[in-house]
Amino acid sequence: MAENGSFASEYLAVAVEAAKSAGEIIRSGFYQTKNVEHKGQVDLVTETDKACEDHIFNYLKKHFPEHKLIGEETSAANGTAELTDDPTWIVDPLDGTTNFVHGFPFVCVSIGLTIGKVPTMFTGIRGQGAFLNGNPIKVSPQSELMKSLLATEVGTKRDKLTVGATTNRINSLLFKVRSLRMSGSCALNLCGIACGRIDLFYELGFGGPWDVAGGVVIVQEAGGVVFDPSGGDFDLMSQKVAASNTHLRNLFIDALKEAEETNP
Amino acid sequence: MAENGSFASEYLAVAVEAAKSAGEIIRSGFYQTKNVEHKGQVDLVTETDKACEDHIFNYLKKHFPEHKLIGEETSAANGTAELTDDPTWIVDPLDGTTNFVHGFPFVCVSIGLTIGKVPTMFTGIRGQGAFLNGNPIKVSPQSELMKSLLATEVGTKRDKLTVGATTNRINSLLFKVRSLRMSGSCALNLCGIACGRIDLFYELGFGGPWDVAGGVVIVQEAGGVVFDPSGGDFDLMSQKVAASNTHLRNLFIDALKEAEETNP
Repeated sequence: MAENGSFASEYLAVAVEAAKSAGEIIRSGFYQTKNVEHKGQVDLVTETDKACEDHIFNYLKKHFPEHKLIGEETSAANGTAELTDDPTWIVDPLDGTTNFVHGFPFVCVSIGLTIGKVPTMFTGIRGQGAFLNGNPIKVSPQSELMKSLLATEVGTKRDKLTVGATTNRINSLLFKVRSLRMSGSCALNLCGIACGRIDLFYELGFGGPWDVAGGVVIVQEAGGVVFDPSGGDFDLMSQKVAASNTHLRNLFIDALKEAEETNP
Repeated sequence: MAENGSFASEYLAVAVEAAKSAGEIIRSGFYQTKNVEHKGQVDLVTETDKACEDHIFNYLKKHFPEHKLIGEETSAANGTAELTDDPTWIVDPLDGTTNFVHGFPFVCVSIGLTIGKVPTMFTGIRGQGAFLNGNPIKVSPQSELMKSLLATEVGTKRDKLTVGATTNRINSLLFKVRSLRMSGSCALNLCGIACGRIDLFYELGFGGPWDVAGGVVIVQEAGGVVFDPSGGDFDLMSQKVAASNTHLRNLFIDALKEAEETNP
């Protein structure tokens, strides 16, 4: 994509239009009574998620009939399509569905594009920077864990093993960072890293690539790094993600490793 | 206050003006570099907290020279004044200081007034309702824990006993509620209960009465209840608070009790 700026601009313009018009659908439903279905005991979906995904898919298909599409709601119905080298739009039509259902005003639309399996654009285009409402953003300059704000989420799995691991990890990390935030939106947590509102973010066991495909490029274009919480390379299909600036990366990986080893 | 509407309106008008102008001070400092001091290892204060408290105190003194004042920053310097039956303004000039320092856009000004030690006003006046930007608000109608969104905070104490108790409690509660949010602002969590964005909130060991004096009345005027997490009466000076709607109150108290007893 970096090699072809004119394509990139067209892709971005279409994605921004699709996200904006989906945002209007979300806004109009925000304070209305919602018809909620359960994907799991605490994993929710509404008619608005589905309407937004349909809307975005139709919009992208109209402009790019050759491209492939992966969306959270379509995947929930039919299974996640395999990620190929073809240009593939990865869409979370409403990230923060639980927030949406409760009227907790922290939700977003996330639209990512992979080419050759590499996340390639969103509000930033690879090689051309990351932006918030058109203004360039960058990650925080923080280099000390103890001064860092950490974001994570508790996820939707509620078996004893997963919840125990989740709270053990938090217990260990609380001795090393300044404070903890849980916003309820994986995509907005990544954007929070990108604009320096938070310094550290990890999440294990989120829904799928639609939660991160857009945010990953924004973090990287803002000068940050995205990696597997174990310290390995980030894998878009693995449902595990960590992000920070470059100074904190190794400190954060060590802290996460110790968190796995500790039993409070 | 309910017995004297004309006084109440004047108090409210002055408090709203004080909060709005303090809000402008916060806004102008939001994206600037901050001079941060530590009250504890992870408990922060900035020049903006102090400037806002000075501003609000001066404004209130000018209008109500007979009233007493309790403020977070003044108390940090001189110890918390005893709460008496006199009309007493209890002010948190910038709730969410850690969010402010990090540019995480979730902060507020909280101004409460007690008369005869009873929290008596804020954006609601006791007996006259609670409002968000002038529109009446009410708590959520939720009656099932498993469909409830829970908010809490990890606080600023980082000894092993406190952090262990905090994460044990979260572990136990995660099996009973839909999801967990941590916004970093106690006052905004109470307002979240009042407008139904969240269903359950508790916090143990927050800073002082300035974190809750405003929010308590807003919750009550929105149809909610504020209580001690143990199930007893709420005590403004105890640094412990829980809030919900009336349906969830007893279920929430039982869940909190079980959370104290469980060791995962």
